[in-house]
Amino acid sequence: MTDRNLTDIDALIELMAKLPGLGPRSARRAVLHLIRKRALLLTPLADTLQTVAETARECLNCGNISTSDVCDICTSNKRATGEICVVEDVSDLWAMERTGVFKGRYHVLGGTLSALDAIGPDELRIPRLVDRVAAENITEVILALNATIDGQTTAHYIADQLHGNIRLTSLAQGVPIGGELDYLDEGTITAALQARKDI
Amino acid sequence: MTDRNLTDIDALIELMAKLPGLGPRSARRAVLHLIRKRALLLTPLADTLQTVAETARECLNCGNISTSDVCDICTSNKRATGEICVVEDVSDLWAMERTGVFKGRYHVLGGTLSALDAIGPDELRIPRLVDRVAAENITEVILALNATIDGQTTAHYIADQLHGNIRLTSLAQGVPIGGELDYLDEGTITAALQARKDI
Ligand SMILES: [Zn+2]
Ligand SMILES: [Zn+2]
Repeated sequence: MTDRNLTDIDALIELMAKLPGLGPRSARRAVLHLIRKRALLLTPLADTLQTVAETARECLNCGNISTSDVCDICTSNKRATGEICVVEDVSDLWAMERTGVFKGRYHVLGGTLSALDAIGPDELRIPRLVDRVAAENITEVILALNATIDGQTTAHYIADQLHGNIRLTSLAQGVPIGGELDYLDEGTITAALQARKDI
Repeated sequence: MTDRNLTDIDALIELMAKLPGLGPRSARRAVLHLIRKRALLLTPLADTLQTVAETARECLNCGNISTSDVCDICTSNKRATGEICVVEDVSDLWAMERTGVFKGRYHVLGGTLSALDAIGPDELRIPRLVDRVAAENITEVILALNATIDGQTTAHYIADQLHGNIRLTSLAQGVPIGGELDYLDEGTITAALQARKDI
């Protein structure tokens, strides 16, 4: 008798339990569910994870997650509107895209400036943003950062770096204080984008 | 420009959102987490899912989930104690195994009898249980079914089928260890009171 069989399924439960939002109990339920839905769920999930594991990377231009060196938004001529929307995280980019309202490109900082965590401009692709504004004929930069202290500190720092002939805007009030974009519904984000103000 | 890149990641989010306990939002968070932890989590998870997708099946003897035709518990001579613990679901088998107390084998029914859902004995491996009791020198069958009406109906049906020289038992009912009376339902308190013991 070997323990190999037991170990494969146990290993799967342990890995699933490491996902945010899943603990050991829900991981066990998920694994049972997967095994019962092998053709419909388990095999497609295994195949898609393999593909994503082999191909997913950060876009060299904007930091979006992509399966090529430069993401679809950065390569699409339709998105060359002269606008860049600066977000903290890929999840914020996804939240913006779900509204379908913004037609320009993005710049994903990957966080906010933080003295406490020793995160400076170089960790956040801010130099790259400054380069892009010059190189891509940008006329407007929308700072869609979270309404937190660190988010607003970062917005002010970027505004200082981007002095010149471009319009600088931020999302309108309507984003609640302390609110994170990824938690907001599409309607709120759409309203805030449409009512954006110069800063 | 193709949408292939976007689609792989979107497809992954959609599949993850079908897992019990995960919705679209937590699926997005999980996928971002996976992509950020590629070496530590994404690749191992993809590999393990592939292995389980290719090998997981139900044990032909007991219904446990296994990666061979007959599971490790059924093939281990150490587990040939003459006891079979009958459970509704593989998750119940796992719960019993986590206690480490039961040393015998299992029989997973795969549900309970239900007139409403038209689930009869043949759907539940009950004929197979009767065969096993004769073939495996079984001396005791522990009916570890849930304390629901369907669970108890099923226990009675099985007890009727297994008349003979074997001992039939069920799990004791009472107050769970650490349980507070105020949080327990009346049925549990009643059962615990009726089965009270001298101290
Ligand atoms: Zn990009
Ligand atoms: Zn078995």
